[in-house]
Amino acid sequence: MREQIVDAAFEQFHKHGYNACGVKLITDSAKVPKGSFYNHFESKEALALVVMDRYGQTRHLDELQTPKTAPLARLRHHFEALAQDIVDLGYERGCVYGNFSTEAADHIPAIRAGVEAAFGHWANAIAATIREAQDDRSVTTTQSPETLARFLLNSWEGAIVGERAAKDGTSFAAFFTVVFEVVLR
Amino acid sequence: MREQIVDAAFEQFHKHGYNACGVKLITDSAKVPKGSFYNHFESKEALALVVMDRYGQTRHLDELQTPKTAPLARLRHHFEALAQDIVDLGYERGCVYGNFSTEAADHIPAIRAGVEAAFGHWANAIAATIREAQDDRSVTTTQSPETLARFLLNSWEGAIVGERAAKDGTSFAAFFTVVFEVVLR
Repeated sequence: MREQIVDAAFEQFHKHGYNACGVKLITDSAKVPKGSFYNHFESKEALALVVMDRYGQTRHLDELQTPKTAPLARLRHHFEALAQDIVDLGYERGCVYGNFSTEAADHIPAIRAGVEAAFGHWANAIAATIREAQDDRSVTTTQSPETLARFLLNSWEGAIVGERAAKDGTSFAAFFTVVFEVVLR
Repeated sequence: MREQIVDAAFEQFHKHGYNACGVKLITDSAKVPKGSFYNHFESKEALALVVMDRYGQTRHLDELQTPKTAPLARLRHHFEALAQDIVDLGYERGCVYGNFSTEAADHIPAIRAGVEAAFGHWANAIAATIREAQDDRSVTTTQSPETLARFLLNSWEGAIVGERAAKDGTSFAAFFTVVFEVVLR
Protein backbone atom coordinates (compact mmCIF):
# COMPACT_ATOMS: atom_id res chain seq x y z
CA MET A 1 0.00 0.00 0.00
CA ARG A 2 2.92 2.32 0.76
CA GLU A 3 4.25 1.67 -2.74
CA GLN A 4 0.84 2.49 -4.29
CA ILE A 5 0.77 5.80 -2.38
CA VAL A 6 4.28 6.76 -3.48
CA ASP A 7 3.52 5.90 -7.13
CA ALA A 8 0.33 7.95 -7.06
CA ALA A 9 2.00 10.86 -5.26
CA PHE A 10 4.82 10.94 -7.82
CA GLU A 11 2.29 11.28 -10.62
CA GLN A 12 -0.03 13.75 -8.86
CA PHE A 13 2.67 16.03 -7.40
CA HIS A 14 4.33 16.20 -10.80
CA LYS A 15 1.04 16.95 -12.55
CA HIS A 16 -0.57 19.40 -10.12
CA GLY A 17 2.29 20.74 -8.01
CA TYR A 18 2.65 20.61 -4.24
CA ASN A 19 -0.09 23.00 -3.17
CA ALA A 20 -2.84 21.87 -5.54
CA CYS A 21 -2.27 18.21 -4.65
CA GLY A 22 -3.84 17.25 -1.33
CA VAL A 23 -3.65 13.97 0.55
CA LYS A 24 -7.17 13.08 -0.63
CA LEU A 25 -6.18 13.45 -4.31
CA ILE A 26 -3.20 11.18 -3.68
CA THR A 27 -5.12 8.47 -1.82
CA ASP A 28 -7.98 8.59 -4.36
CA SER A 29 -5.49 8.25 -7.17
CA ALA A 30 -3.74 5.38 -5.30
CA LYS A 31 -7.16 3.77 -4.72
CA VAL A 32 -6.52 3.45 -0.98
CA PRO A 33 -8.60 4.83 1.92
CA LYS A 34 -7.58 8.35 2.99
CA GLY A 35 -7.16 7.13 6.58
CA SER A 36 -4.45 4.68 5.54
CA PHE A 37 -2.17 7.53 4.47
CA TYR A 38 -1.03 8.36 7.99
CA ASN A 39 -0.14 4.72 8.70
CA HIS A 40 2.63 5.13 6.16
CA PHE A 41 3.58 8.83 6.17
CA GLU A 42 3.72 11.42 8.89
CA SER A 43 2.59 14.18 6.55
CA LYS A 44 2.23 15.28 2.91
CA GLU A 45 5.60 16.95 3.40
CA ALA A 46 7.26 13.64 4.42
CA LEU A 47 5.79 11.97 1.33
CA ALA A 48 7.08 14.82 -0.86
CA LEU A 49 10.61 14.04 0.33
CA VAL A 50 10.19 10.37 -0.65
CA VAL A 51 8.88 11.45 -4.06
CA MET A 52 11.89 13.76 -4.56
CA ASP A 53 14.19 10.87 -3.77
CA ARG A 54 12.48 8.64 -6.29
CA TYR A 55 12.49 11.44 -8.87
CA GLY A 56 16.25 11.70 -8.41
CA GLN A 57 16.60 8.12 -9.64
CA THR A 58 15.03 9.12 -12.97
CA ARG A 59 17.33 12.11 -13.58
CA HIS A 60 19.86 10.22 -15.74
CA LEU A 61 22.70 11.06 -13.33
CA ASP A 62 24.36 7.64 -13.64
CA GLU A 63 24.78 8.11 -17.41
CA LEU A 64 26.68 11.34 -16.68
CA GLN A 65 29.28 9.36 -14.79
CA THR A 66 29.61 6.33 -17.06
CA PRO A 67 32.86 6.88 -18.99
CA LYS A 68 31.76 5.14 -22.18
CA THR A 69 31.75 8.34 -24.23
CA ALA A 70 33.66 11.65 -24.04
CA PRO A 71 32.61 13.89 -21.11
CA LEU A 72 31.25 16.67 -23.32
CA ALA A 73 29.12 14.17 -25.27
CA ARG A 74 27.84 12.79 -21.95
CA LEU A 75 26.81 16.27 -20.81
CA ARG A 76 24.91 16.86 -24.01
CA HIS A 77 23.32 13.44 -23.81
CA HIS A 78 22.31 14.11 -20.19
CA PHE A 79 20.36 17.25 -21.06
CA GLU A 80 18.97 15.69 -24.24
CA ALA A 81 17.52 12.86 -22.16
CA LEU A 82 15.99 15.35 -19.70
CA ALA A 83 14.58 17.38 -22.60
CA GLN A 84 13.08 14.28 -24.23
CA ASP A 85 11.25 13.39 -21.00
CA ILE A 86 9.61 16.81 -21.04
CA VAL A 87 8.87 16.87 -24.78
CA ASP A 88 7.17 13.47 -24.33
CA LEU A 89 4.88 15.12 -21.75
CA GLY A 90 3.93 17.93 -24.16
CA TYR A 91 6.14 20.42 -22.25
CA GLU A 92 3.92 19.93 -19.20
CA ARG A 93 4.69 19.04 -15.56
CA GLY A 94 8.22 20.50 -15.49
CA CYS A 95 10.87 19.33 -13.03
CA VAL A 96 9.75 18.09 -9.60
CA TYR A 97 12.72 19.85 -7.95
CA GLY A 98 12.04 23.15 -9.69
CA ASN A 99 8.33 22.90 -8.95
CA PHE A 100 8.88 22.20 -5.26
CA SER A 101 11.51 24.96 -5.04
CA THR A 102 9.11 27.48 -6.57
CA GLU A 103 6.00 26.41 -4.71
CA ALA A 104 7.08 25.17 -1.33
CA ALA A 105 10.69 26.11 -0.45
CA ASP A 106 9.71 29.47 1.07
CA HIS A 107 7.16 27.93 3.39
CA ILE A 108 8.35 24.40 4.25
CA PRO A 109 11.93 24.12 5.59
CA ALA A 110 12.20 20.34 5.01
CA ILE A 111 11.28 20.73 1.35
CA ARG A 112 13.67 23.62 0.92
CA ALA A 113 16.45 21.46 2.41
CA GLY A 114 15.46 18.50 0.22
CA VAL A 115 15.55 20.53 -2.99
CA GLU A 116 18.81 22.21 -1.98
CA ALA A 117 20.41 18.78 -1.39
CA ALA A 118 19.04 17.40 -4.67
CA PHE A 119 20.31 20.39 -6.66
CA GLY A 120 23.67 20.10 -4.87
CA HIS A 121 23.99 16.41 -5.71
CA TRP A 122 23.07 17.07 -9.33
CA ALA A 123 25.44 20.06 -9.61
CA ASN A 124 28.27 17.90 -8.24
CA ALA A 125 27.65 15.25 -10.91
CA ILE A 126 27.66 17.91 -13.67
CA ALA A 127 30.78 19.53 -12.19
CA ALA A 128 32.65 16.20 -12.15
CA THR A 129 31.86 15.72 -15.85
CA ILE A 130 32.91 19.30 -16.69
CA ARG A 131 36.17 18.70 -14.78
CA GLU A 132 36.81 15.65 -16.99
CA ALA A 133 36.07 17.76 -20.08
CA GLN A 134 38.48 20.44 -18.88
CA ASP A 135 41.13 17.77 -18.26
CA ASP A 136 40.80 16.46 -21.82
CA ARG A 137 40.78 20.09 -23.07
CA SER A 138 37.37 19.92 -24.72
CA VAL A 139 36.22 22.72 -22.35
CA THR A 140 38.36 25.74 -21.41
CA THR A 141 39.39 26.27 -17.82
CA THR A 142 38.53 29.96 -17.47
CA GLN A 143 35.65 29.15 -15.11
CA SER A 144 35.53 26.56 -12.33
CA PRO A 145 33.56 23.34 -12.88
CA GLU A 146 31.41 24.27 -9.86
CA THR A 147 30.41 27.68 -11.26
CA LEU A 148 29.70 26.25 -14.71
CA ALA A 149 27.75 23.31 -13.27
CA ARG A 150 25.55 25.51 -11.09
CA PHE A 151 24.94 27.80 -14.05
CA LEU A 152 24.05 24.90 -16.36
CA LEU A 153 21.70 23.31 -13.86
CA ASN A 154 19.88 26.60 -13.22
CA SER A 155 19.75 27.45 -16.91
CA TRP A 156 18.17 24.09 -17.55
CA GLU A 157 15.56 24.71 -14.85
CA GLY A 158 14.87 28.11 -16.41
CA ALA A 159 14.54 26.62 -19.90
CA ILE A 160 11.80 24.42 -18.45
CA VAL A 161 10.05 27.49 -16.99
CA GLY A 162 10.21 29.08 -20.46
CA GLU A 163 8.82 25.98 -22.19
CA ARG A 164 5.92 25.63 -19.81
CA ALA A 165 4.75 29.04 -21.00
CA ALA A 166 5.57 28.75 -24.72
CA LYS A 167 5.55 24.97 -25.25
CA ASP A 168 7.26 25.42 -28.63
CA GLY A 169 10.84 24.19 -28.19
CA THR A 170 12.43 27.66 -28.48
CA SER A 171 13.80 27.73 -24.95
CA PHE A 172 15.26 24.23 -25.14
CA ALA A 173 16.86 25.07 -28.51
CA ALA A 174 18.40 28.26 -27.07
CA PHE A 175 19.74 26.25 -24.13
CA PHE A 176 21.50 23.67 -26.31
CA THR A 177 22.87 26.29 -28.72
CA VAL A 178 24.30 28.66 -26.12
CA VAL A 179 25.49 25.99 -23.66
CA PHE A 180 27.28 23.81 -26.22
CA GLU A 181 28.42 26.47 -28.69
CA VAL A 182 29.30 29.28 -26.28
CA VAL A 183 29.49 28.33 -22.59
CA LEU A 184 31.25 24.95 -22.89
CA ARG A 185 33.68 25.85 -25.63
CA MET B 1 -11.85 49.10 -3.93
CA ARG B 2 -10.59 47.59 -7.20
CA GLU B 3 -7.19 49.14 -6.51
CA GLN B 4 -7.13 47.68 -2.98
CA ILE B 5 -7.87 44.22 -4.37
CA VAL B 6 -5.13 44.46 -7.02
CA ASP B 7 -2.57 45.66 -4.45
CA ALA B 8 -3.46 42.83 -2.08
CA ALA B 9 -3.46 40.24 -4.87
CA PHE B 10 -0.03 41.37 -6.06
CA GLU B 11 1.37 40.81 -2.57
CA GLN B 12 -0.47 37.55 -1.85
CA PHE B 13 0.09 35.88 -5.25
CA HIS B 14 3.77 36.75 -5.04
CA LYS B 15 4.06 35.42 -1.50
CA HIS B 16 1.96 32.24 -1.72
CA GLY B 17 1.76 31.41 -5.42
CA TYR B 18 -1.34 31.02 -7.54
CA ASN B 19 -2.80 27.82 -6.12
CA ALA B 20 -2.27 28.52 -2.42
CA CYS B 21 -3.82 32.00 -2.75
CA GLY B 22 -7.60 31.92 -2.85
CA VAL B 23 -10.05 34.78 -3.39
CA LYS B 24 -10.80 34.84 0.35
CA LEU B 25 -7.11 35.35 1.23
CA ILE B 26 -6.98 38.23 -1.25
CA THR B 27 -10.17 39.96 -0.06
CA ASP B 28 -9.19 39.46 3.62
CA SER B 29 -5.80 40.95 2.90
CA ALA B 30 -7.44 43.83 0.97
CA LYS B 31 -9.87 44.30 3.88
CA VAL B 32 -12.90 44.19 1.55
CA PRO B 33 -15.90 41.81 1.69
CA LYS B 34 -15.38 38.60 -0.28
CA GLY B 35 -18.63 39.28 -2.21
CA SER B 36 -17.22 42.52 -3.62
CA PHE B 37 -14.52 40.63 -5.51
CA TYR B 38 -16.82 39.60 -8.34
CA ASN B 39 -18.03 43.16 -8.86
CA HIS B 40 -14.54 43.96 -10.05
CA PHE B 41 -13.12 40.73 -11.49
CA GLU B 42 -14.67 37.86 -13.35
CA SER B 43 -12.39 35.31 -11.70
CA LYS B 44 -9.14 34.77 -9.80
CA GLU B 45 -7.62 34.05 -13.20
CA ALA B 46 -8.67 37.47 -14.57
CA LEU B 47 -7.14 39.14 -11.52
CA ALA B 48 -3.92 37.17 -12.03
CA LEU B 49 -3.62 38.70 -15.52
CA VAL B 50 -3.98 42.21 -14.06
CA VAL B 51 -1.32 41.38 -11.45
CA MET B 52 1.06 40.13 -14.16
CA ASP B 53 0.57 43.36 -16.05
CA ARG B 54 1.37 45.43 -12.97
CA TYR B 55 4.36 43.20 -12.19
CA GLY B 56 5.68 43.93 -15.67
CA GLN B 57 5.87 47.61 -14.79
CA THR B 58 8.33 46.76 -11.99
CA ARG B 59 10.69 44.68 -14.16
CA HIS B 60 13.11 47.53 -14.95
CA LEU B 61 12.52 47.13 -18.69
CA ASP B 62 12.55 50.87 -19.40
CA GLU B 63 16.09 51.17 -17.99
CA LEU B 64 17.19 48.52 -20.50
CA GLN B 65 16.18 50.81 -23.32
CA THR B 66 17.41 54.16 -22.01
CA PRO B 67 20.62 54.84 -23.94
CA LYS B 68 22.39 56.72 -21.13
CA THR B 69 25.03 54.03 -20.65
CA ALA B 70 26.62 51.41 -22.94
CA PRO B 71 24.28 48.51 -23.84
CA LEU B 72 26.34 45.84 -22.06
CA ALA B 73 26.40 47.95 -18.87
CA ARG B 74 22.62 48.36 -19.16
CA LEU B 75 22.15 44.60 -19.42
CA ARG B 76 24.24 44.03 -16.31
CA HIS B 77 22.42 46.79 -14.49
CA HIS B 78 19.07 45.28 -15.50
CA PHE B 79 19.84 41.90 -13.94
CA GLU B 80 21.52 43.52 -10.93
CA ALA B 81 18.33 45.47 -10.23
CA LEU B 82 16.25 42.28 -10.54
CA ALA B 83 18.67 40.45 -8.25
CA GLN B 84 18.56 43.23 -5.66
CA ASP B 85 14.76 43.02 -5.53
CA ILE B 86 15.01 39.32 -4.66
CA VAL B 87 17.92 39.69 -2.21
CA ASP B 88 15.85 42.35 -0.42
CA LEU B 89 13.11 39.74 0.01
CA GLY B 90 15.54 37.21 1.54
CA TYR B 91 15.55 35.16 -1.71
CA GLU B 92 11.83 34.50 -1.22
CA ARG B 93 8.80 34.94 -3.52
CA GLY B 94 10.70 34.55 -6.80
CA CYS B 95 9.41 35.97 -10.09
CA VAL B 96 5.64 36.26 -10.59
CA TYR B 97 6.00 35.16 -14.23
CA GLY B 98 8.12 32.13 -13.34
CA ASN B 99 5.80 31.21 -10.48
CA PHE B 100 2.69 31.40 -12.65
CA SER B 101 4.41 29.49 -15.47
CA THR B 102 5.38 26.70 -13.08
CA GLU B 103 2.14 26.52 -11.15
CA ALA B 104 -0.63 27.43 -13.53
CA ALA B 105 0.44 27.40 -17.21
CA ASP B 106 -0.35 23.71 -17.66
CA HIS B 107 -3.89 24.07 -16.36
CA ILE B 108 -5.07 27.60 -17.22
CA PRO B 109 -4.74 28.63 -20.89
CA ALA B 110 -5.17 32.39 -20.20
CA ILE B 111 -2.34 32.38 -17.68
CA ARG B 112 -0.13 30.37 -20.01
CA ALA B 113 -0.79 32.94 -22.77
CA GLY B 114 -0.17 35.83 -20.36
CA VAL B 115 3.18 34.46 -19.21
CA GLU B 116 4.19 33.61 -22.77
CA ALA B 117 3.44 37.20 -23.86
CA ALA B 118 5.27 38.68 -20.84
CA PHE B 119 8.36 36.54 -21.45
CA GLY B 120 8.21 37.44 -25.15
CA HIS B 121 8.04 41.17 -24.41
CA TRP B 122 10.93 40.90 -21.96
CA ALA B 123 13.02 38.76 -24.35
CA ASN B 124 12.49 41.36 -27.08
CA ALA B 125 13.77 44.15 -24.81
CA ILE B 126 16.86 42.09 -23.90
CA ALA B 127 17.42 41.19 -27.58
CA ALA B 128 17.27 44.85 -28.64
CA THR B 129 19.95 45.69 -26.07
CA ILE B 130 22.11 42.74 -27.15
CA ARG B 131 21.75 43.89 -30.78
CA GLU B 132 23.06 47.32 -29.77
CA ALA B 133 25.97 45.64 -27.96
CA GLN B 134 26.75 43.58 -31.05
CA ASP B 135 26.62 46.73 -33.17
CA ASP B 136 29.16 48.47 -30.94
CA ARG B 137 31.24 45.25 -30.93
CA SER B 138 31.11 44.73 -27.15
CA VAL B 139 29.36 41.37 -27.80
CA THR B 140 30.33 38.93 -30.58
CA THR B 141 27.84 38.12 -33.31
CA THR B 142 28.21 34.33 -33.36
CA GLN B 143 24.69 33.93 -31.92
CA SER B 144 21.55 35.87 -32.74
CA PRO B 145 20.27 38.47 -30.25
CA GLU B 146 17.01 36.49 -30.04
CA THR B 147 18.70 33.21 -29.07
CA LEU B 148 20.97 34.95 -26.54
CA ALA B 149 18.07 36.94 -25.09
CA ARG B 150 15.86 33.89 -24.61
CA PHE B 151 18.76 32.03 -23.03
CA LEU B 152 19.54 34.92 -20.66
CA LEU B 153 15.93 35.36 -19.60
CA ASN B 154 15.51 31.63 -18.91
CA SER B 155 18.86 31.39 -17.14
CA TRP B 156 17.77 34.24 -14.91
CA GLU B 157 14.50 32.48 -14.10
CA GLY B 158 16.48 29.34 -13.31
CA ALA B 159 18.91 31.23 -11.07
CA ILE B 160 15.87 32.32 -9.07
CA VAL B 161 14.71 28.68 -8.79
CA GLY B 162 18.19 27.80 -7.50
CA GLU B 163 18.21 30.63 -4.96
CA ARG B 164 14.81 29.76 -3.58
CA ALA B 165 16.27 26.39 -2.56
CA ALA B 166 19.73 27.51 -1.40
CA LYS B 167 19.13 31.17 -0.49
CA ASP B 168 22.89 31.78 -0.37
CA GLY B 169 23.73 33.87 -3.45
CA THR B 170 25.63 31.08 -5.24
CA SER B 171 23.22 30.81 -8.16
CA PHE B 172 23.06 34.57 -8.74
CA ALA B 173 26.87 34.77 -8.58
CA ALA B 174 27.19 31.95 -11.14
CA PHE B 175 24.70 33.74 -13.40
CA PHE B 176 26.63 37.03 -13.40
CA THR B 177 30.00 35.33 -13.83
CA VAL B 178 29.05 33.05 -16.71
CA VAL B 179 26.73 35.50 -18.50
CA PHE B 180 29.09 38.48 -18.42
CA GLU B 181 32.44 36.71 -18.63
CA VAL B 182 31.55 33.90 -21.02
CA VAL B 183 28.19 34.23 -22.83
CA LEU B 184 28.28 37.96 -23.65
CA ARG B 185 31.92 38.25 -24.55
